[in-house]
Amino acid sequence: MLSRRSFLAAAVASLGPFAGRARAAFSNLALDSRPRVDARTLRDRIEALSRFGRPAGGTFSDGVSRVAYSDADVQGREYVIGLMKAAALEPRIDPAGNIFGRRSGTDAALPPILFGSHIDSVPSGGNFDGDLGSLSALGVMEALAASATRTRHPLEMVVWAHEEGVAFGRALACSRIVAGDVKPADLDEVWNGVRRADAIRRIGGDPDRILEARRPKGSFHCYVELHIEQGGNLEKAGIPIGVVEGIVAIDKYDVLVTGFANHAGTTPMAERHDALVAASQLTLAVRDVVTSQPGRQVGTVGHLEIAPNAPNVIPGTARLTIELRDLSPEKLRVLGEAVRARGLEIASATGTTIDFKPASLAPPAAAAPEVQRAIERAAAALQLKTMRLPSGAGHDAQMMAQIGPMGMIFVPSIGGVSHSPKELTAWDDCARGADVLLGTVLEMDRT
Amino acid sequence: MLSRRSFLAAAVASLGPFAGRARAAFSNLALDSRPRVDARTLRDRIEALSRFGRPAGGTFSDGVSRVAYSDADVQGREYVIGLMKAAALEPRIDPAGNIFGRRSGTDAALPPILFGSHIDSVPSGGNFDGDLGSLSALGVMEALAASATRTRHPLEMVVWAHEEGVAFGRALACSRIVAGDVKPADLDEVWNGVRRADAIRRIGGDPDRILEARRPKGSFHCYVELHIEQGGNLEKAGIPIGVVEGIVAIDKYDVLVTGFANHAGTTPMAERHDALVAASQLTLAVRDVVTSQPGRQVGTVGHLEIAPNAPNVIPGTARLTIELRDLSPEKLRVLGEAVRARGLEIASATGTTIDFKPASLAPPAAAAPEVQRAIERAAAALQLKTMRLPSGAGHDAQMMAQIGPMGMIFVPSIGGVSHSPKELTAWDDCARGADVLLGTVLEMDRT
Repeated sequence: MLSRRSFLAAAVASLGPFAGRARAAFSNLALDSRPRVDARTLRDRIEALSRFGRPAGGTFSDGVSRVAYSDADVQGREYVIGLMKAAALEPRIDPAGNIFGRRSGTDAALPPILFGSHIDSVPSGGNFDGDLGSLSALGVMEALAASATRTRHPLEMVVWAHEEGVAFGRALACSRIVAGDVKPADLDEVWNGVRRADAIRRIGGDPDRILEARRPKGSFHCYVELHIEQGGNLEKAGIPIGVVEGIVAIDKYDVLVTGFANHAGTTPMAERHDALVAASQLTLAVRDVVTSQPGRQVGTVGHLEIAPNAPNVIPGTARLTIELRDLSPEKLRVLGEAVRARGLEIASATGTTIDFKPASLAPPAAAAPEVQRAIERAAAALQLKTMRLPSGAGHDAQMMAQIGPMGMIFVPSIGGVSHSPKELTAWDDCARGADVLLGTVLEMDRT
Repeated sequence: MLSRRSFLAAAVASLGPFAGRARAAFSNLALDSRPRVDARTLRDRIEALSRFGRPAGGTFSDGVSRVAYSDADVQGREYVIGLMKAAALEPRIDPAGNIFGRRSGTDAALPPILFGSHIDSVPSGGNFDGDLGSLSALGVMEALAASATRTRHPLEMVVWAHEEGVAFGRALACSRIVAGDVKPADLDEVWNGVRRADAIRRIGGDPDRILEARRPKGSFHCYVELHIEQGGNLEKAGIPIGVVEGIVAIDKYDVLVTGFANHAGTTPMAERHDALVAASQLTLAVRDVVTSQPGRQVGTVGHLEIAPNAPNVIPGTARLTIELRDLSPEKLRVLGEAVRARGLEIASATGTTIDFKPASLAPPAAAAPEVQRAIERAAAALQLKTMRLPSGAGHDAQMMAQIGPMGMIFVPSIGGVSHSPKELTAWDDCARGADVLLGTVLEMDRT
């Protein structure tokens, strides 16, 4: 006797050219008993969200500038909040500005399963970094509602505020607050003329109650985040699902090079104290040091500003950032020391001073083995291959790892491109990732 | 028998501690027959002018930001125009915005002797660059009036508008117009949101009549400019007066480095197209090329901007300027070609493209031998040593050299510093320079 499932599969197959569409329509009922995230809706929403922060006159492929607290960010958040309201998730903004939406479970005594991502971007960023995980989390909630699936644990989706390290020079800023790393004085920081407290107020947070945004250890069952890989490993290997082993540590140095501004025409070459010459040597030294040993470590000078920055004046100062990333904090320490030693030599050779200020030290964050296994089971149930890999990028997940079990699902980035308008993930891969997120939530609900 | 001069010198010497002041008071009457520029007034005016564009809460030694067309520039010009009116020079603003003041000579058929400088500055510049020559020119006019000295030639002082290469990325902008290098379309350029025509209107010029600012060849007897050296040669040699042989040519390149913006954490080092790494190599290549052969040539990367300029994004583009200066245009050509060849290698090695655009080519300007000799005679009469030297900086004088005989007087810059708040010339050297300017005007009046 055919099982109900086999019977329906045979019936759907007989529909010929309509089989695909019919399979989608029937999927919640039929081919397997699992609910699925609506792939078409997910794509439509990623495209709709991309309009907030799109360059004037541009298209989806021109990327997005949705820096935290900008008009585009505020509008994008309103769009997502509207969708969450429509899904009856009663969105709540915590004092840090993070957006939460909740669905009750059958056992109110259990802690929630938390999942989500962010929607802010770097300047001239792409449309998948954060957006995919945030809108997939919403899709998971809707798929469970559509299929009337009840979980034991309450479910909680989150759209983190201010993930990218642009505003106030801080990354993972609002999940960091939830993880407990916050002092009220931090909110006095000023960036682009705006106080951080006022920026948080602008997105609906409440800086006066910032400490209430903290969540204690054990306050969630686990945290799961779907994200694009932002590297080329999955694409190269032809594997649709990455299971993150951990997130690399980041050491960041704010560097000030002080030379001496002087006339570019009258100052002999030998008598210069050119801050840009020193900064250029330091930029190349970072690359040399980082590539001088085997491994996946990376180092970047991404920010540089010189003064007075006039064609006919020898630069007097240069401010730059050095970012070093690796899973091993010990390796980062060694690399940082080597860069600083080179900085001393460069300062001496160029007649400048070079001051290094460690500005932010993200510890490495290991993914919980049980969440990694749940992701692998969810992928296997969908007949999707997986590979384990580290995350070279920082994610809000690493903050959640401080207070509970964490796991991350990666999907392939075409060409490994991200933080760029050219960032791209195939729509099928987006849909696979969303379904694995859904499956992982259900797998974790059983544990 | 004592000459009248020796007698008075002896009388003044007998005044003991008051000798200096008495010598100054008597100088026009007595010690020699030459009129002198009032050194105390010159200093007071340089200090007064320094207030327009001084950093808030700063002092004289904090320098000045009096960029052309800024509020500070407009106010500084009003201050100088007021002084010129008080000296009955009936200041006139030409259509380009340059300020002229005239004193008639005994032979109305002769062309005027023109002398002056500018008062605009670079951002965070000093209080002597331009100001000394402008206010000394006024002092020369007043000294001649005070001593009732009549010249054969009419005398004309000038305060050039917009000398520094900041606004609109152009240097020597308004003397260039007088020299005939102007097209009405040039005034459509926009800088910081302002049209150049409107900027010129702001300082009292008349862009609709811009072509009337041109002066033909032979329209002045000679042009003389007093300026600080801005290099360290005079100070090192212990010589108070420099006689400029010529002004170096300047080749400038606007450079665009195009790499690929990508995530600083997930993009392996070997797969980067880092525009800042390429720009850093190019910055060092400019220095290497320029110092690879003997001579006084200089090369500078003074302006650099990267995008997106975020700590966690590999720079996708870098815009920078390269300035090369030397008396020999042929040497500049060779250096420029060498830098571009290195640029090609760097682009290839870093996976970037590097585009060079020659933006401004100032030809070298020779000082007229007869003006050089007049400066030397004027200095000798004051028992001041001189040395001949090139000017590494550009000056309005090089524009005047296109349409008439030109000469420049340099005074020592302490430490060779300029285009910096630390720019400094001893007040005694300022006074010596002003007196040599006066003497040069009188020497040239005899030719």
